[in-house]
Amino acid sequence: MQIITISREFGSGGREFGKRLAQSLGWAYYDKDIILNLAQSNEKINELSEKELLQEFPISFGKTFSSLSIFRNSAVNLVAKEQRAIRSIAKREENFVIVGRCADVVLKKHKPFNLFIYADMNAKIKRCKKHHPKGEKLTDKEMEKKIKQVDSARRKYHELVSTEKWGDKKNYHLLINTSGADIESLVAPVSEYIKTYFDGKKK
Amino acid sequence: MQIITISREFGSGGREFGKRLAQSLGWAYYDKDIILNLAQSNEKINELSEKELLQEFPISFGKTFSSLSIFRNSAVNLVAKEQRAIRSIAKREENFVIVGRCADVVLKKHKPFNLFIYADMNAKIKRCKKHHPKGEKLTDKEMEKKIKQVDSARRKYHELVSTEKWGDKKNYHLLINTSGADIESLVAPVSEYIKTYFDGKKK
Repeated sequence: MQIITISREFGSGGREFGKRLAQSLGWAYYDKDIILNLAQSNEKINELSEKELLQEFPISFGKTFSSLSIFRNSAVNLVAKEQRAIRSIAKREENFVIVGRCADVVLKKHKPFNLFIYADMNAKIKRCKKHHPKGEKLTDKEMEKKIKQVDSARRKYHELVSTEKWGDKKNYHLLINTSGADIESLVAPVSEYIKTYFDGKKK
Repeated sequence: MQIITISREFGSGGREFGKRLAQSLGWAYYDKDIILNLAQSNEKINELSEKELLQEFPISFGKTFSSLSIFRNSAVNLVAKEQRAIRSIAKREENFVIVGRCADVVLKKHKPFNLFIYADMNAKIKRCKKHHPKGEKLTDKEMEKKIKQVDSARRKYHELVSTEKWGDKKNYHLLINTSGADIESLVAPVSEYIKTYFDGKKK
């Protein structure tokens, strides 16, 4: 089983990178939207007990939550369901690429290859304005604010499931700065890099 | 002109990576030892005036030094000479790989590709003990202490020439974690990645 997890700053092109990487490898592809869908559609995990919720946050609950009552919070409940959905993907897929939702933490025991995609603020603003039709109406300053808000939410999500710092290089195998780069053309050598990495692990 | 600079944690295999990368690309190779040699052998730059020294530390001298008298310190004088040596390499070489001595900062105007090579402490200890005959006599704890000392010196060197933080991902194009990886096999895809990156810049 080979898994590539992608963590990424908003606007860095991490999702595009992940999609193209999965395509180039012929692997299945999962991202935030698909995981959310799985988490919400699986009736069996719609009602998690407090005990089950505790199991989903083995490390960090003591640090993050002041009281167990917060486990009944619906947002936290959803995070737990998403983690279960991610683990269910690992049960049925052989090789896959998964973007977002702290899959690097949740799937740690499967020894995934963890990629972090990021870029300079200017490059992210440019990319967001190009790819999001609504973004065109925002000023650069407004777009920067939005980018920071999304990344702050991602950081907080990460804090729920891990004691590690989001984006800290020690938690990844490769970190790619996409500022001013053409993502499409960079996928082939990165795909080769990861294949070589996994081949080395087999030896 | 295409330049690859390599910054690296001690024991991560950054120097080996740089040598192999230069070999694979057919480019010239420079590292700390060669730069030191150039800096010490060039008679013309053996005597730097205070004014000249100030020019070598345009950004950070105010932050780092409490008094100009420190410019007369021989260690700082050597750093200045090394920076001049690095610039002189860029004058005579077309394409080259350069490891260490903050070449990413010194050669910034040439828009180099900046690589950062790092690894987990355990991987670095293992590598150091394998590659340094003297290292075999050290305990893991002693080796860890040595690794931290060398990296601390590198961090301080970096602070002399830059206000940026050493190892902060925003200052690099690609960061590679070599823990448990076979460096030799990873050089080919990284070399492809960098070629593709530079090709994209030409367009």
